[in-house]
Amino acid sequence: MEEAFIRPVIKELKDYIPGTTPKESGIIKLASNENPFGPSPKALEALAKEGKNLQVYPDQKSTLLREALAKKLSIDENCIIAGNGSDEIMQIVVATFLKPGEEVVIPQNSFSVYEFVTKLFDGQPVFASLKDSSVDLDAIAKAVSPKTKMIFVANPNNPTGTTFTAKELEDFLSKIPENILIIIDEAYINFVESKAFPDSLKYVKEGRNLLVLRTFSKLYGLAGLRIGLGIAKKELVSFMYRAKLPFNVNRLAQVGAAAALEDKEFANKTYQNNLEGKKYLYEELDNLGLEYKKTEANFIFINLKRSADQIFMGLFKQRVIIRPLTSFGFPEAIRVSIGTMEQNQKFISALKAVL
Amino acid sequence: MEEAFIRPVIKELKDYIPGTTPKESGIIKLASNENPFGPSPKALEALAKEGKNLQVYPDQKSTLLREALAKKLSIDENCIIAGNGSDEIMQIVVATFLKPGEEVVIPQNSFSVYEFVTKLFDGQPVFASLKDSSVDLDAIAKAVSPKTKMIFVANPNNPTGTTFTAKELEDFLSKIPENILIIIDEAYINFVESKAFPDSLKYVKEGRNLLVLRTFSKLYGLAGLRIGLGIAKKELVSFMYRAKLPFNVNRLAQVGAAAALEDKEFANKTYQNNLEGKKYLYEELDNLGLEYKKTEANFIFINLKRSADQIFMGLFKQRVIIRPLTSFGFPEAIRVSIGTMEQNQKFISALKAVL
Repeated sequence: MEEAFIRPVIKELKDYIPGTTPKESGIIKLASNENPFGPSPKALEALAKEGKNLQVYPDQKSTLLREALAKKLSIDENCIIAGNGSDEIMQIVVATFLKPGEEVVIPQNSFSVYEFVTKLFDGQPVFASLKDSSVDLDAIAKAVSPKTKMIFVANPNNPTGTTFTAKELEDFLSKIPENILIIIDEAYINFVESKAFPDSLKYVKEGRNLLVLRTFSKLYGLAGLRIGLGIAKKELVSFMYRAKLPFNVNRLAQVGAAAALEDKEFANKTYQNNLEGKKYLYEELDNLGLEYKKTEANFIFINLKRSADQIFMGLFKQRVIIRPLTSFGFPEAIRVSIGTMEQNQKFISALKAVL
Repeated sequence: MEEAFIRPVIKELKDYIPGTTPKESGIIKLASNENPFGPSPKALEALAKEGKNLQVYPDQKSTLLREALAKKLSIDENCIIAGNGSDEIMQIVVATFLKPGEEVVIPQNSFSVYEFVTKLFDGQPVFASLKDSSVDLDAIAKAVSPKTKMIFVANPNNPTGTTFTAKELEDFLSKIPENILIIIDEAYINFVESKAFPDSLKYVKEGRNLLVLRTFSKLYGLAGLRIGLGIAKKELVSFMYRAKLPFNVNRLAQVGAAAALEDKEFANKTYQNNLEGKKYLYEELDNLGLEYKKTEANFIFINLKRSADQIFMGLFKQRVIIRPLTSFGFPEAIRVSIGTMEQNQKFISALKAVL
């Protein structure tokens, strides 16, 4: 096989490095921001009923799920598109709008799929620098050029768990030309505690060129089912439908996510556990004198100032898996998912043993 | 929203037109070549056990499923890639290899996703004419130009159910330059009765530039779960991994498909039912004096020589849904999935009432 046979950009693309998954029981995985309580029980009930229909192709537009979410968010269902995980929506939006050579502004050291989809469609990623390891909206605004087509930004940010406020978003939007499509990845919104967090859907409703991404992988514990949603004005969404494969979201994801939306008890338990977990971790990390970021997500960014890969290996021997942030570009930091209190305690004692 | 904002090709892409799905019970759907017995029971058992793990991201490479299939096919597991349905593999192969403007030869009036993925990556579809409504390998060979990068062809063909033989494939391959990637979509291979059907994997093993597509949607009744597989030489597959989203195949699809592979009883029942169904349909259609194609798949192509859309509506009133082939480019033909004997009988009596 000659290299000339493949598209040039494929040479630059690398395999995604996932969180390590334990191969034996008794190992605690705090590496992929998964729900420590498992999947939503209401989702599981719905799946059990849907099994008998699995020979039938899924609804192409995930209609029932979109209707349920539209009601919950008080938005037109035609403003919503469902994807095989929100990362598929990232791919679809780029496939729909990005022309070769157009620029996409992406914060440095962020979720790698933003860069992947940009390159896959021959776009030009332009990386905006960080401030204090976190997203810097001013740097993003400065990175905009006449060739900029889109901006990707996560709020809360992955892997730092930091957020920008409603006021900061308002200021940012006033600086960005209206014709640039801004994609705000809100995968972790359900864990936000801050009252200053922006209502990004307000801008969608006002007709701004803005796509909001949500997922069922985190709060609802459905990462394994693959279901995410994009929310934007109707015109944008209707074009995006043309760039998606017909049957992109499986039947179980559609019914499971719709049922999970109604699972307030599970959502509340998960949220409360996360609040308690982060308070515990703040205290323990303070006691250890470690530098970390206050988090609005279900994970915590810890700057160890020593090799993250070595700490990862040490913790692994203690049967705790965390995410070394080397592949994100922070070789001395780790990201630890907030687990059950028991898991958090085991992480802290393992960390003490390793440091 | 100005049209100039979208990629030019998006203007040409249309929504996929799926088989109509009944909204009430008691309606027979013979429109999408789904399994009339539902999903594989062994798959359902496996799903029930996997539910508790749904908060965990799926294995990126569907390792266990690929290992199971590799064993069954006596091929290296690194020659296999799993997709969110085989249509995702069509997208991945194009994303990996097709450069803008390169040509892709596609038989006329075939599965619309071949054209869709080609256009999505700015390739140039070149349509090869049919012979007697079926795939014409000679016409495909003649459509090849110095700009041809790939060829898509289905065997058995959709929507006619016809096949090309081992000898015909051998002759065809001898005419096609080795550097052209040939994609053979074998979605319906499990229903083939003909002893002359080619062993396309032989060419993969020999190192030919050839990708074979398989699906769990048909024989195993898992269309709603979304799981397909691509089989090609290792070098091709390793490049394709770079063009896929990290978590493309959901956990339930991975375990369900692996379990279905072991469900010989269900596979055999489905195959036998299909054999009996097609014999019954041949007889009844002969009695009605209708023109049809002998099928090697789980559906039958009937050339009614009158408006397929009108027949569709008439049958719909009789509570039978079939596929009018207008969107495939056969406005006077229908495609009818072979159902249970009872469903086949209901279809025939509804057809008699409508004609």
